[in-house]
Amino acid sequence: MTKHIYIYSPSSAVRDKAAFRRGVKRLRALGHEVEVDDAALSVHQRFAGDDATRLAAISRAAASGADVALIARGGYGLTRILDAVPYKALTKAIEKGTEFVGCSDFTALQNALLAKTGAVTWSGPAVGEDFGAEAGPDDIMEACFDDLLTGQGEGTGWRMPARDVDLKFKPVQDATLWGGNLCVLTSLLGTPYFPMVEKGVLFIEDVNEHPYRVERMLDQLKMAGVLARQRAIVFGQFTGIRLVPGYDRGFGLNTVIDRLRATLKVPVLAGLPFGHVQTKVLLPVGAKVSMAAEGRDIFLVWGHRHAHGHDDHHGHDHHHAH
Amino acid sequence: MTKHIYIYSPSSAVRDKAAFRRGVKRLRALGHEVEVDDAALSVHQRFAGDDATRLAAISRAAASGADVALIARGGYGLTRILDAVPYKALTKAIEKGTEFVGCSDFTALQNALLAKTGAVTWSGPAVGEDFGAEAGPDDIMEACFDDLLTGQGEGTGWRMPARDVDLKFKPVQDATLWGGNLCVLTSLLGTPYFPMVEKGVLFIEDVNEHPYRVERMLDQLKMAGVLARQRAIVFGQFTGIRLVPGYDRGFGLNTVIDRLRATLKVPVLAGLPFGHVQTKVLLPVGAKVSMAAEGRDIFLVWGHRHAHGHDDHHGHDHHHAH
Repeated sequence: MTKHIYIYSPSSAVRDKAAFRRGVKRLRALGHEVEVDDAALSVHQRFAGDDATRLAAISRAAASGADVALIARGGYGLTRILDAVPYKALTKAIEKGTEFVGCSDFTALQNALLAKTGAVTWSGPAVGEDFGAEAGPDDIMEACFDDLLTGQGEGTGWRMPARDVDLKFKPVQDATLWGGNLCVLTSLLGTPYFPMVEKGVLFIEDVNEHPYRVERMLDQLKMAGVLARQRAIVFGQFTGIRLVPGYDRGFGLNTVIDRLRATLKVPVLAGLPFGHVQTKVLLPVGAKVSMAAEGRDIFLVWGHRHAHGHDDHHGHDHHHAH
Repeated sequence: MTKHIYIYSPSSAVRDKAAFRRGVKRLRALGHEVEVDDAALSVHQRFAGDDATRLAAISRAAASGADVALIARGGYGLTRILDAVPYKALTKAIEKGTEFVGCSDFTALQNALLAKTGAVTWSGPAVGEDFGAEAGPDDIMEACFDDLLTGQGEGTGWRMPARDVDLKFKPVQDATLWGGNLCVLTSLLGTPYFPMVEKGVLFIEDVNEHPYRVERMLDQLKMAGVLARQRAIVFGQFTGIRLVPGYDRGFGLNTVIDRLRATLKVPVLAGLPFGHVQTKVLLPVGAKVSMAAEGRDIFLVWGHRHAHGHDDHHGHDHHHAH
């Protein structure tokens, strides 16, 4: 099953060219037709080309007619061009069957698009960090990506942390899934690019952010009324946290989660395998989902999403990541 | 001229107790009656006491009848208690003549108070980092603090960076001065604690924030419409920036300032001696100011601000910091 994959760079410059090449090679070895955007390896300051170059690359990805448009890497660069992103062209491409996949800085484009047109994009891998990982791509990530390509994926699942064994979670249905990188998402608050999702499932992840900064961002979303409007908040992976002994005195991510649970009526789940980690599932930002728990196992289901919009439900195929 | 100074801890726990004691000693050596809040050295997790303890300390500072209520230090802790801060008691205390002084995390309380009641507070020193500095307090900071105590200060001034020698700046009058720490201020956007200042003078500073994060915060304020509503944006000191050679490729703070100037009609000034630096002026957040340039010299004037609200203008006394 050969698919057409278009690779482009909307954010930071690709620095690890070896990882990028490994990623492209891996996707080709899987049998896909991989098209690399002309500006994918451009460099301007810290960006993959200047703003006009990256905007043109996004437009080319939208015009590519590919099955999947995949970012080379995240980093930084999308928030500063949100006023000029071709939202209509992206939405038209998505309607015609191109799935846009990315993570980290890509959160800005995903949620801005959700705010502007409601189009669905995928939080998922990048070429370099994921497909080009030195130890080889993660099995679960690849299985989820394959589900997207074949249109077989209908959901995902994971096991909650042991400390949450007694957590009760009432099933949620017909809720909009949204979110991504917490820092990038929060940097949209107050702007026209922050999606006003009511009764949604908000998932978040971050890297190299101290728990106090994670808490401050969550408090901002809370004080803005965003969190109370959701049906569930789902913590993905928060990596690169370094506590300072004798200073933080136990103020870690679980402290933040516990306080959030104590001050918010909305259920707060943890353990989602998504973030700046190798084992990451793919998540449809903007799609309607249902979510339920069986003991410590959470099932997040979006149903059958075919490129051309058929919405039939015939048995779940989701990769459960423990 | 003995003044009553009340010292309290609304944010992070005081870790450098030696610096704190040096600061208290210095203020006493200047002839002041220094009252230290009972919880000033409390510790809970990373905070100077739990939320209730710090809120009680803020209330005691408001009830102290002191001439100045001064924070022990900044850090983190105010954003998470903004829903419970006694804004009315603080405003009443300010009307009765207590001046509240602080910086960094204190930005949250200052701007929330401005949003809630319009009361004026001072961006300025903290006990430990400033009065307790190992090399002794900075002369200009102490002179500005003395101006506040005596009611003599009517403004401040500074010299713009050499690169801005050709910058033209039309005088601004009757504009509300506001701002402080950029990260803390931005963390209020979208919440009821962000002041909706029109035609103001917005000053900003930060520490240990990479230029790309400074840009992302400014873009958030810009996309929210905040920057275009101002009469001027004033950059204070941005310290602790570490660029990564070969990666940032020249993307420094001046890159951020230049792009802001290219994309915003509002004048952007630089060089304000305020931030996480020893040489810091005191700035009345919420006060009406006028601002004008003479060559590279900027004069920021708030006029006579006496504790009991007389608003007469009799000659400027401002400390010019180069």
